[in-house]
Amino acid sequence: MPFALHERLAADTLPVAELGLCTLLLMQDHRFPWTILVPQRPDLRDYHDLPREDAMQAFDEVTLVSRAIADEFGAHKLNVAALGNQVPQLHIHVIGRFAEDDAWPGPVWNAGPVENPNLALVEDWRERLRTRIG
Amino acid sequence: MPFALHERLAADTLPVAELGLCTLLLMQDHRFPWTILVPQRPDLRDYHDLPREDAMQAFDEVTLVSRAIADEFGAHKLNVAALGNQVPQLHIHVIGRFAEDDAWPGPVWNAGPVENPNLALVEDWRERLRTRIG
Repeated sequence: MPFALHERLAADTLPVAELGLCTLLLMQDHRFPWTILVPQRPDLRDYHDLPREDAMQAFDEVTLVSRAIADEFGAHKLNVAALGNQVPQLHIHVIGRFAEDDAWPGPVWNAGPVENPNLALVEDWRERLRTRIG
Repeated sequence: MPFALHERLAADTLPVAELGLCTLLLMQDHRFPWTILVPQRPDLRDYHDLPREDAMQAFDEVTLVSRAIADEFGAHKLNVAALGNQVPQLHIHVIGRFAEDDAWPGPVWNAGPVENPNLALVEDWRERLRTRIG
């Protein structure tokens, strides 16, 4: 089976860019600059399912996005996580955190689902990420 | 400053093994086989602070521990995360998950802190991990 983005990831996010290995997505959540990187390889589930020859590229893309979030939004901490308990397709969360955000110092999942997301703000973030990542 | 394990990580865990790059720790929590890998490099905070020349070794060690947890305990999902909101020293959580565990399908942090941990069980897990990882 060729790679196809999981429908739940597609529904919850806006597409930002193609990085080489990963598709970069932005969660429709104005509380945090919350990106998701999805390696475009079929049938990956856990992080250790990533082919070893892709691991360096994945690290470089996580680094690129982390630095963009830190520099563009002034996030003082980055959270990186591959959980996948609810969506089985391997995806890597890269989330900018702030000492005054809705979940700090807990993980973002402690804050529960977003209500009435400010999509204009999220779209502005998407454009800023696109400009910075090029 | 040379590398020194953060006191909170030392207090919350049992030491398991030295993997080459990372010190492997096991959380004193009987609800999940919850390991933590700490790269022995001074002054790392975010995942993207990891020197690029260490990234492949980090991937290999996360893979080694993930497979050990899956095989030894029958975990059907692995959660991998570098958060660091509360302990600033870079550390990578590698956690075995089960469809009947206390936090499923949420992240383990949703379950709150453990009460009255069964340390005999955690020590048994440590020995099994040591035997498997060699």
